[in-house]
Amino acid sequence: MPKSFPQDSVGLVSPTLYKFDEELELRSGKVLKRFELMVETYGELNAERSNAILICHALSGDHHAAGYHSADDQKAGWWDTCIGPGKPIDTNRFYVVSLNNLGGCAGSTGPVSTNPDTGKPYGPDFPVVTVRDWVKSQKMLMERLGIEKWAAVAGGSLGGMQVLRWAISYPQCLHNAIVIAAAPKLSAQNIAFNEVARHSITSDPNFHQGRYLEHNTLPKQGLMLARMVGHITYLSDSAMRAKFGKSIAEFEAQGTNFGRDLRTGKLSFGFNVDFQVESYLHYQGERFSENFDANTYLLMTKALDYFDPSVDYDGDLSKAFANSDCRFLVMSFSTDWRFPPERSKELVNSLLKAGKDVSYLEIDADEGHDAFLLPVPRYLNALSAFLGKVHEEVCSHAS
Amino acid sequence: MPKSFPQDSVGLVSPTLYKFDEELELRSGKVLKRFELMVETYGELNAERSNAILICHALSGDHHAAGYHSADDQKAGWWDTCIGPGKPIDTNRFYVVSLNNLGGCAGSTGPVSTNPDTGKPYGPDFPVVTVRDWVKSQKMLMERLGIEKWAAVAGGSLGGMQVLRWAISYPQCLHNAIVIAAAPKLSAQNIAFNEVARHSITSDPNFHQGRYLEHNTLPKQGLMLARMVGHITYLSDSAMRAKFGKSIAEFEAQGTNFGRDLRTGKLSFGFNVDFQVESYLHYQGERFSENFDANTYLLMTKALDYFDPSVDYDGDLSKAFANSDCRFLVMSFSTDWRFPPERSKELVNSLLKAGKDVSYLEIDADEGHDAFLLPVPRYLNALSAFLGKVHEEVCSHAS
Repeated sequence: MPKSFPQDSVGLVSPTLYKFDEELELRSGKVLKRFELMVETYGELNAERSNAILICHALSGDHHAAGYHSADDQKAGWWDTCIGPGKPIDTNRFYVVSLNNLGGCAGSTGPVSTNPDTGKPYGPDFPVVTVRDWVKSQKMLMERLGIEKWAAVAGGSLGGMQVLRWAISYPQCLHNAIVIAAAPKLSAQNIAFNEVARHSITSDPNFHQGRYLEHNTLPKQGLMLARMVGHITYLSDSAMRAKFGKSIAEFEAQGTNFGRDLRTGKLSFGFNVDFQVESYLHYQGERFSENFDANTYLLMTKALDYFDPSVDYDGDLSKAFANSDCRFLVMSFSTDWRFPPERSKELVNSLLKAGKDVSYLEIDADEGHDAFLLPVPRYLNALSAFLGKVHEEVCSHAS
Repeated sequence: MPKSFPQDSVGLVSPTLYKFDEELELRSGKVLKRFELMVETYGELNAERSNAILICHALSGDHHAAGYHSADDQKAGWWDTCIGPGKPIDTNRFYVVSLNNLGGCAGSTGPVSTNPDTGKPYGPDFPVVTVRDWVKSQKMLMERLGIEKWAAVAGGSLGGMQVLRWAISYPQCLHNAIVIAAAPKLSAQNIAFNEVARHSITSDPNFHQGRYLEHNTLPKQGLMLARMVGHITYLSDSAMRAKFGKSIAEFEAQGTNFGRDLRTGKLSFGFNVDFQVESYLHYQGERFSENFDANTYLLMTKALDYFDPSVDYDGDLSKAFANSDCRFLVMSFSTDWRFPPERSKELVNSLLKAGKDVSYLEIDADEGHDAFLLPVPRYLNALSAFLGKVHEEVCSHAS
């Protein structure tokens, strides 16, 4: 148990459940009769209600973006690197709103929630939700919070896609859009990896067409495999090499003999774990499979696959942004091969073609896609500088 | 049924089974009491026995590298692009030897063969084999065929690793080493993908610790997933984009409405196949899972993981080649992200450091790792030119 939290931490936080009794019509045509959103906030909303920043989470994220849930909590929220007093998303200045998206498994209405029509968990009957649906529900949350315009909406990866959707669907509702390690739509390769993940889940015999809870079981093997594949795509080849890529010879130099085997110091000549990277993936996969809902994983990957705002504009992404009225900050990471810099540049080009105010930064970082969650100095500095200006222009003069 | 085979095809071919009654001690310390190798040959061995080329296959390959097995065979051997009369590996000039490796499932001794100790299929009891073991068995085949020195040993991917092992273990036995789309050892990312494949197979409930044949079943779902993951790594992002990456808008322009759904012309808002790439992967995975042995797949991936000839030389790959006495041709493909050009360059640098005769060519090709199997003109031309010289220098003056 830590005696105290770090000085630049938001400290102890707890979420609030917001209930919405109005209907939400989804992109699929299906309707949620009512829904709930689990929300955390950090910092204070100023009197003018002008200093609010919305955080959008990625595939496996949730509302717990910063701080700790208990005094002995070992792990801070998923974006604690960026959110806190004095951090880039400075809670001394900003009121930060973070929610678990619809379809999630951390408290907001999703597959593990009770379906009002049946009294049982939704499971596979929870409707497919899209980025647009999420942003629609986030807009309802915004109204509930009495916020008229976000100082900024920010997110990485799938979170960045939600930011783009905000700029398109609700152009009057945000001053700034911060889009990190994202893409204007998935590549065929991205979709292929998602499909491998989905197929590994749905082909797990414990999946039971998504009704695993009713069968008192979980498709753990499938979810574990899905996460293992995902993890490979989050790390760069170079990050993996740095973490696990020691040669047999280097291990031998460390006195661990044939070295790559974790248990005996020798190659196993069997199908157990020989290399550190295998053990790492097993660990990550197992931990995840015990803590995440498989139906939610399916929904999140499908939301990624379906994201393509150009579809309503003859495939011309720049037209999608015609009415957008915010400033854009787009950031990518050099070794991110899930959503590489080229994909961010496509986005930037479309924004420029649409005549929008856009800043773009490609950050040199070895960590691959995961870099957006990590303390990469140039990244944090750029975000700090941008949000410093945001505070000055949007919040300060009013306060 | 094709009335006739293409003029540049080796035409109808049939394999020969070679039985070896001598013991083979493997790298693991285990011993195969006897073994068999399934072999195809194309072209004629000249009187001086100087025109023989050995072909080494990759992960899912076998002895059937060229030609057709029957008059109505729809599909030629896996390297038919390169092997045939007038083709780069010209069967008018060369005697080409191609075998199924030990541990394979196409006729050579492997997990589906009968274990002489038990009278049942080896299954999971078939010992883990390494690239070194394969080359050792290939050397025994060479002696059986009465060949003293290969004009060349050639292979792509895992095949290229066998070529490197030939140059290290039997330096006097080859004039030329042709190493295509290979790497001096796997990266952590490569191993990670292999482990996902293995884990998907071994966690399939039909795997039965590898004794699926005794249970009259096959771990098809696991093998299918393994192949789906593999396929993603064989294709480049750009190749996938070209094949499957049409935007919704492009599909709409073709009049297929919301387009990406193969069945209804609309996004499914469910977890069935929406995109072409998903359907492609399913098809490839299913076909493979019906035709390939899961235990063999495990063995092949482990042979890849274990390959690292530098391990016996203090991690200095150049030392491994100290005694090598052949000319090297190393080729890589620009969009190959499984074994990218950088990995070939590492190899080339080690060969140069060792003072060896090496030519290196990086071929611009969109097809990713798969390019080594495809008719990429510059690749075929380079191989033709190199082997033309080989024929002149090694075979012609003696004939």
